Order: sequence, then C-alpha cells, then structure tokens
Amino acid sequence: MHDFLETTVRVRYAETDQMGYVYYGNFFVWFEVGRVELLRQMGFAYKEMEQHDDSYIIVAEASCRYLRPALYDDLLRIRTRITEARRRTLRFAYEIRNHSTGALLATGETTHVICDRNGRPKTLPAKYRKLFAVAHRAAAPAHSQT
Amino acid sequence: MHDFLETTVRVRYAETDQMGYVYYGNFFVWFEVGRVELLRQMGFAYKEMEQHDDSYIIVAEASCRYLRPALYDDLLRIRTRITEARRRTLRFAYEIRNHSTGALLATGETTHVICDRNGRPKTLPAKYRKLFAVAHRAAAPAHSQT
Amino acid sequence: MHDFLETTVRVRYAETDQMGYVYYGNFFVWFEVGRVELLRQMGFAYKEMEQHDDSYIIVAEASCRYLRPALYDDLLRIRTRITEARRRTLRFAYEIRNHSTGALLATGETTHVICDRNGRPKTLPAKYRKLFAVAHRAAAPAHSQT
Amino acid sequence: MHDFLETTVRVRYAETDQMGYVYYGNFFVWFEVGRVELLRQMGFAYKEMEQHDDSYIIVAEASCRYLRPALYDDLLRIRTRITEARRRTLRFAYEIRNHSTGALLATGETTHVICDRNGRPKTLPAKYRKLFAVAHRAAAPAHSQT
Repeated sequence: MHDFLETTVRVRYAETDQMGYVYYGNFFVWFEVGRVELLRQMGFAYKEMEQHDDSYIIVAEASCRYLRPALYDDLLRIRTRITEARRRTLRFAYEIRNHSTGALLATGETTHVICDRNGRPKTLPAKYRKLFAVAHRAAAPAHSQT
Repeated sequence: MHDFLETTVRVRYAETDQMGYVYYGNFFVWFEVGRVELLRQMGFAYKEMEQHDDSYIIVAEASCRYLRPALYDDLLRIRTRITEARRRTLRFAYEIRNHSTGALLATGETTHVICDRNGRPKTLPAKYRKLFAVAHRAAAPAHSQT
Repeated sequence: MHDFLETTVRVRYAETDQMGYVYYGNFFVWFEVGRVELLRQMGFAYKEMEQHDDSYIIVAEASCRYLRPALYDDLLRIRTRITEARRRTLRFAYEIRNHSTGALLATGETTHVICDRNGRPKTLPAKYRKLFAVAHRAAAPAHSQT
Repeated sequence: MHDFLETTVRVRYAETDQMGYVYYGNFFVWFEVGRVELLRQMGFAYKEMEQHDDSYIIVAEASCRYLRPALYDDLLRIRTRITEARRRTLRFAYEIRNHSTGALLATGETTHVICDRNGRPKTLPAKYRKLFAVAHRAAAPAHSQT
C-alpha cells in the first residue's frame, strides 16, 4: 500500500508517564511529525508555506483512538494520508504502528483550516492546491477514483 | 450551572508554538488537569486509585475541537463533566474558556477504560463506582434524570 | 524570608516519566513559571515586555541540581529570586520545594540576555531597569546592601 | 573527531515557542536522546538496564549554554560524550549543532547517579562498568590517557 506516507520515530523517555506508557497527548505530536513528512514528500517544507506564502495549517479538530500502549524506546511507524483537500480545509488520517511487530497502536484524524499569520481563514495558494490534489488522489482507494 | 467542575490554569511559555498559539496537543494535558480536579472534588485523589486499588483510568479515545486560539499568559477555565460512568468505562466532556472574557476556546471528550497495573481491563472498585454514579447524576441535564 | 517570590504548581501526569518521577526537563518549565510570577509581582506581565517594548528575556544558560524526586500530584512551591540585574543581562535563582513537607527537591539558576524580536541583544528599557533594580535589592541578603 | 557519538533529530513544531525558537527546556530532551543512542552504540539498550538489572541512570545535575537558537524544521546533530564513569556516577557532555551548517547551537552537561527502582543509590553492575570504561577511554583526549 503506497497510499500512506511512512516515517519512523523512537519513543523518548520524556514521552512516557508513570503508568509506563506514552502519555496520550504525545500521539498528537507524532501526528504532526507525520503530516510534515508527508508534505515534504509532496515536494515542499511546511515552513516555506508559513514564511513565503503566509499560509498556516491550523488545527480545527483532532482525535485519536488508543488500541495498544506505546512503550519507551519502541521504534514506531507513523503512517499519514490525506483524506480531504479543499480550497480552505484539509483532513489527514494517521496510524501509529510498532515498527518491529507491525501491531497497530493508535489511529487518528485531524482537520485543518488554512489561515494567514493573523489567524484569518484564507484560500490555500494555487501551487499548494495542485500538490494536495495530486497527493489526495494518490491516497484515495481505487474504487473512489471513478 | 454546577454540572461542570471548574479549575483554572495559566498558559505557560513552554505551551506556545511559533504561530503564537498554544500547541494543539497541550489541550489534552489541560483535559487531564480537569479530570483530576473533578475526581478530587468527588472525594479522592486519582493517585490513590492507582496506589491503593490498582485501578488505572486508561485513555481509549480523545478528541478536541479548536474554536479560538489560547494565548500565552491567558488565564483559562477548564470545565469538566462526567458524561458516562459504567462498570468498566468512563467518559468525560470538557470546555476550555478564557477566564476573563468567558470566550469558548475548545471543547473535547475522552473515553476511558479501567485497567490494573498490567493494563488488563477490570471493573471499577465499588467505592469508586458509587462516587462516579453520584457525580454523573449531578452532571446530567435535568430532563434526563426522569 | 521575603527575598523569594513563591508560587505553587501541582505535578501533572504528563510531567511524570516511567521511573515514576517528574522528567528532569520539566523543572525548567517550572523555573519559567516562577520567573513570570516574579515579574508579575514586580508590577508587569512579561508579555507586555514582548508586545509593547520589543524586549525578550532570552535564556543564555540554565542549570538544575536534583536533590529529591518530584512525584505525581505533589503540590510544589517554586521560589524565585533575582540574583543579578544589569543593563543587558539578568540572573535568577530557584528552589523547588514540596509544599506540604517543605523538603527541598531542586535548586537552579538561569542567565538571560535582553534581545529584540529578531534576537539582537539590546539594553533593557529604563522602566524595567528600575523595577529590576528594586526587586534585586529586595532579594539581596542584608549584608550585601552596604 | 570520533570521541562523540552523533545522532540527528529534526525540530518539531511542538518544540518551538512564540519567540519562534525552540523552548529552552527541550534541549534536555535532546540530551536524553543523545545519551540513549550513545549507550546503544556501546552495546546495550538503556531499557535493559532498567528491566533486567534494576539499574536506573538518575539525573543529579543538568546544565545547558545556549549560543544560537534552534529553529523549526532544522535538522540537528546531537553529539554526546562520556566525561566521567565511576562505580556510582556518570557524566556526559553534549553539543547541539545545526546539521547543515555545523553551527554550534548549545553545549551541556549532565551528572547521574545509579539507583535501583526505589531510587536508592547502587553500584553500576560490572558488565556495564566495563562498557562505560571502554567508552570513556575512547572519548578521552589522547593526552589524558597516559
């Protein structure tokens, strides 16, 4: 399956809590890592969007389902996919898997609006819209491309 | 309205990001603060559940909707409410408001399962079930108590 | 002793690690909380320095000695004191104590330079220099005021 | 120079603050990443020390000097070296460099004591002492090996 972009992270001691698991809020940091690497693979660094095009991908909604704990020093695979790409909004879906065993640890989703540096919604510049449209088609299941 | 338990936090510099807003993952830390203070008001410290009763409130699902940014040094009001209390699962709902203006910044929900220290699901001990049942009734809208 | 400004924080689950202690990097977040509350007691919010006077208190050095672990749900007392206030640099000293027992958990120091928003060193504006000078004298041991 | 073990990290959005720099406390997380990768290169995973040998490397002192800011999405090189390896204490030194330019962003040091899971100081087990002794000699400047 090449619909997901994959990147890996190793669990840091700082990310664990006294239960011995990764603290639940830290999964959203990994989602961010996955998003940013997906954009890089699409052909640009997210910081360029901010610096050169005054376009910020602001989070409007975020959710995560936790299936199995992530443990200290685990190597994890973050799998990220675009599920919606419109003029003003973007959606991403995520899977967090143990890299060695392949076990699914968590799934998640985030919804975003494009804003300028003052937080006002704006339309995604055309050059990025094209890239997102291509990436979104690549990520879509075959039967939905008809 | 006394259905929500309220507690306040002040936004730390560490919690902001380069957009000048609080990073989205940090809202889930505030949800934790709200949960813990709600339990304290119900009559116990969560750490006692862990230490004395081998009962951990593990997060199974978490979500947040972001309506307005939280800014550095803002004093925030975390409002927490129990929306479901069963033998093995708990649900909480949250609101994050600016304490000065009352503006609603975010809403969220978390779903939890009760586990022992090895992460195996278990039934919530009876003494806590009673407390949660009382708190849940107090949090329920009047028309649903019939 | 009124040389230290005191403020309290409660240890969050997010701040613990799998050893069951607070992760060592988080003490520096508490130092920041202590600094900011000290400035507030001196008469201004740090954010005003940034927004109105283009003056940022950038960290140049930071250190911490860890004497006893901080534990989940502990109420901590952060004690902060100005140890040096010059035209372009500031130094603060910190103590973290358990609020109930008074036990000293950690001590620390930070050194800062004043910069503009582009990170260029500048002289602290006169109105702040006066406030820091007063606060520094108040914090100094009696025998050094001669 | 092969005295330092090198590993890389990319700066996460979560690690920045509203100044647009990485928050100062996060450098200590990178020091941890450097330490753990150094131990891995020495032949063991730190988690094995905890799980199999009841030996925890507790932080007793930590310090950092900040020379230049680390920025969002920068690729950083963490360079870690053992500066002292005794029966009950360890010291590490760190450099954080921009991976592309080589510019030195920060230097730091941490001092550690070996403890059991209850936080009681103990002697580092012999098998680890040997590995640390070897690594320490490798890290020492030539003129100090006489």
